[in-house]
Amino acid sequence: MRIVVTGAGGFVGREICRLLLQRGDDIVGLDVNGQSMLDGIQQVIGELADREIRHSLFSKGCDALIHLATVPGGAAEADPAASRRVNVDAMYNLLSEAAENQQGLRFVYASSIAVLGDTLPPVVDDQTPLSPRMIYAGHKAMMEDAVAMFSNRGEIDGVTIRLPGILARPKGPSGLKSAFMSDLFHALKNNEPFECPVSAEGTIWAQSVRKCAENFVHAALLNSAVLPASRAVTLPAIRTSMADLAAEIAAQCQVASGLVTYLPDKQLEEAFARQPKLLTPAAELAGFSHDGNCANLVTNALMSI
Amino acid sequence: MRIVVTGAGGFVGREICRLLLQRGDDIVGLDVNGQSMLDGIQQVIGELADREIRHSLFSKGCDALIHLATVPGGAAEADPAASRRVNVDAMYNLLSEAAENQQGLRFVYASSIAVLGDTLPPVVDDQTPLSPRMIYAGHKAMMEDAVAMFSNRGEIDGVTIRLPGILARPKGPSGLKSAFMSDLFHALKNNEPFECPVSAEGTIWAQSVRKCAENFVHAALLNSAVLPASRAVTLPAIRTSMADLAAEIAAQCQVASGLVTYLPDKQLEEAFARQPKLLTPAAELAGFSHDGNCANLVTNALMSI
Repeated sequence: MRIVVTGAGGFVGREICRLLLQRGDDIVGLDVNGQSMLDGIQQVIGELADREIRHSLFSKGCDALIHLATVPGGAAEADPAASRRVNVDAMYNLLSEAAENQQGLRFVYASSIAVLGDTLPPVVDDQTPLSPRMIYAGHKAMMEDAVAMFSNRGEIDGVTIRLPGILARPKGPSGLKSAFMSDLFHALKNNEPFECPVSAEGTIWAQSVRKCAENFVHAALLNSAVLPASRAVTLPAIRTSMADLAAEIAAQCQVASGLVTYLPDKQLEEAFARQPKLLTPAAELAGFSHDGNCANLVTNALMSI
Repeated sequence: MRIVVTGAGGFVGREICRLLLQRGDDIVGLDVNGQSMLDGIQQVIGELADREIRHSLFSKGCDALIHLATVPGGAAEADPAASRRVNVDAMYNLLSEAAENQQGLRFVYASSIAVLGDTLPPVVDDQTPLSPRMIYAGHKAMMEDAVAMFSNRGEIDGVTIRLPGILARPKGPSGLKSAFMSDLFHALKNNEPFECPVSAEGTIWAQSVRKCAENFVHAALLNSAVLPASRAVTLPAIRTSMADLAAEIAAQCQVASGLVTYLPDKQLEEAFARQPKLLTPAAELAGFSHDGNCANLVTNALMSI
């Protein structure tokens, strides 16, 4: 298959491309940073907001498009206009152009659990209404509706998957406010102390980047008749407290979990560490999955760093 | 109170302004057509997409903004770019500017049941996910998320109300695909034959324009703590078959219901006349209401024509 991946040089994009290359797929990758993309893929280097760049993605046709390119959460909060330009306007243009160039194209859209908002009910399920607070989340939610609309019109064949925390990202600035979850892995792997910006009891929803890439490839291939009418599913995730996660990482890295101290930041705690029970029957029915348990999540996540 | 109404010269806008004037409110009305606006309101004549025009709405401050101005369904379907420009881009700008000029302003947004889509479950309730197909509906849904986001940030105090069919509109082109519901009233009131473009068994959700205006004024005044996290409610509506509606209108107008013949159009039937049972507990909890029963709906609707 020939698959276009936007944001191909990002953390999740690289893992997806790795999996697609193993499958023998042809990949057209778009990223602002050519050096971040894997060898063996046809590279398109430039901005998603650039019409010529977008057009070049469709020049040879494709069987599916995986849309990851985004102004991430922290960066969007700092520059709402940039988020609107890329996460809303450029993506809407990409949807229109996909429809024009290849009517009915499978379009896999990376949304985020952030669309659900900060104030969650005691149990989140497929009926929980969207109530975004962050700029990133509001824009992601808007584009979920656009994906549903273009799909219901038969102009694209869309699949929206809402990502939980993806572990473990590389060290360094990612523009994501949830980066602390990955930073915990790096610190413990290196036997270094870590000051956690959310509480020990704080609960998160997480998935390893390896499992996440498998879910994206599944999204590119599935029969969309298995999806709900909204075309959007919240990915299954492991729910764990930060303390339990830290203990499991420490055990697998053979270091002391006492390396971790907790100094909660109110905003981060509210946005990322009050995640209640999560039920994802629609995603499971459609064949998506999580890492199985916290130990597997940690094992899989450690493989990426 | 001082209230800004966009689309003040439209069918619903005029009825809202009438009610506000009765209450003694000051009104700043925006419309492309100055002659369509009622006397006694401060008129701003121009396009919502014009930044200067939008800015003039806030020049003297206000207590609430009721946003009705829109490219309606049929017109949006015919010109998706115009819908994007007005229904998405200009409204997003209006939200940003409201937040900038009057942080926390009550912003009442007229959305539509069209956001739910064409393929509805056997019962629609507050958990039914959005699945828009029409351009108008997709854009309305996108902006529901924007209203939720700006509200959750404390930048505006938003209330989204999803309108069912509003009866009875004036005769003539409205740009609305659902205009046939109103045309039925005009025909029977004038004792004229009417060819209905949906089936006799076709079911619709409807509200009189009078009741609708009351709901808008309620939305401008309510305490937003009563709203769901999404800030959006589907308005209560009377569910009736076209045949029952026609019989009731005929009885009240003292004409023969046999004046109505049915020649269903597949697209109109799917989009507007397969409306299942509707449950709206969130709206009722927040104090919104419908006309009570089909007879009252018809009586109230006939008063507007």
